Amino acid sequence: MSDPLFEFLCRLGDNTLVLGHRVSEWCGVAPVLEEDIALANTALDLIGQTQLWLGLAGEIEGKGRDADRLAFHRDVWDFRSVLLVEQPNGDFGQTMMRQFLFDSWHLMYLKALMQSSNDQVSAIAEKSVKEVTYHLERSTDTVIGLGDGTAESHARMQKALDRLWPFVGEMFLSDEVDTEMVKQWIAPDPSDLRAGFDAHIVEVLAEATLVKPDDDFAHKGGKSGVRHTEHLGHMLTQMQWLQRAYPDATW
Amino acid sequence: MSDPLFEFLCRLGDNTLVLGHRVSEWCGVAPVLEEDIALANTALDLIGQTQLWLGLAGEIEGKGRDADRLAFHRDVWDFRSVLLVEQPNGDFGQTMMRQFLFDSWHLMYLKALMQSSNDQVSAIAEKSVKEVTYHLERSTDTVIGLGDGTAESHARMQKALDRLWPFVGEMFLSDEVDTEMVKQWIAPDPSDLRAGFDAHIVEVLAEATLVKPDDDFAHKGGKSGVRHTEHLGHMLTQMQWLQRAYPDATW
Repeated sequence: MSDPLFEFLCRLGDNTLVLGHRVSEWCGVAPVLEEDIALANTALDLIGQTQLWLGLAGEIEGKGRDADRLAFHRDVWDFRSVLLVEQPNGDFGQTMMRQFLFDSWHLMYLKALMQSSNDQVSAIAEKSVKEVTYHLERSTDTVIGLGDGTAESHARMQKALDRLWPFVGEMFLSDEVDTEMVKQWIAPDPSDLRAGFDAHIVEVLAEATLVKPDDDFAHKGGKSGVRHTEHLGHMLTQMQWLQRAYPDATW
Repeated sequence: MSDPLFEFLCRLGDNTLVLGHRVSEWCGVAPVLEEDIALANTALDLIGQTQLWLGLAGEIEGKGRDADRLAFHRDVWDFRSVLLVEQPNGDFGQTMMRQFLFDSWHLMYLKALMQSSNDQVSAIAEKSVKEVTYHLERSTDTVIGLGDGTAESHARMQKALDRLWPFVGEMFLSDEVDTEMVKQWIAPDPSDLRAGFDAHIVEVLAEATLVKPDDDFAHKGGKSGVRHTEHLGHMLTQMQWLQRAYPDATW
């Protein structure tokens, strides 16, 4: 296994990179102008966080790879993002449900990271918390608005929740990397965050008149890199095209 | 403008390359096993023809680019395929309608190329005609079978025809490259093939109980390379991924 801290930082950076890219796919094609701009903004925040996480990962690795190199020149099997974030956008409702589920976890996790024994980790977490607080506010409002909206929007949000729920559990799985991070007081045990997450989710879904699926079966393999869904590879071919075609291109 | 013969050969090779790749996307996911295998076979034929056309193009160009180099290391703006072939597969009906429209043109054009003053061109055309005769037989049968099938299959085929018709006209447009090929007795004027094509189409569509759209508006820009639809670039990112990521890879 490579350095656990490097793995840990890649997980954080890959989550924000993959979700940031997905959200950026809405740029210019969102249903209304305000949502288009808000989504582009969210994507920019996430890509900005990626630069910090992957930049730090590259430093820790010490092999001369910077954030761009890690983002654009790794193959799919080297990505450590959770499976949730690589799921396709679907309709606007599915995009916002994915965002809500991720934001809910993300904010809790980042808040815990603010207490990290690693100063660089806590500094990035502190900066990110401000942005992600706003992401969660927006995605929560949208899930409630569309869930408790028209029959059509309600049905779509329930479908989105049912579609994405099997990808929620992975965010709370602990493995040897997490154990090592806990040992070094760098990061919390993800499984400790589940109860708080569920409480928050239940509350929001009630207000959104949506029903949480009973089955907590969870797909896994993303954060460990063992197995991604087919969607990530296809996304990377597009995301990495320029740097693959023109490896030495500069502005 | 680059050598007209090179341009002409790229047009032929890019048509079969792009359509071959599109058809290969069905591999493993076609509605029934026999269709899956038939489509894979068609894709293989088209890719085989691509090797011949682009191989000859590379020879003519004389810059050391072989068929693989031309297929995998050109950017979207260097592709000379007609817009029809890059259109997404859609459902099985749309795929077969696209195939039927292309095959109908392709066979007529190849038959004319058998008379080419360029021996290599006529040899490739002769080899291709055998394969494409079979392609057209299959796609014609399918268009008739599904067009004159159930209400559902009929509606889907009509929709596919309406969707694809604006991409038909480009195959019959003549430009300066065509003019030069005609002058050198290498290839026919595409516009001379339109009447024969229409006669064939009308006959098949009548049997398929489908209605040819009235409007002959034609999108263009593919064979000249001036403007492709957004679909081609996305397709190429996936088609070219391996060679872009590992430029020196060998078997």
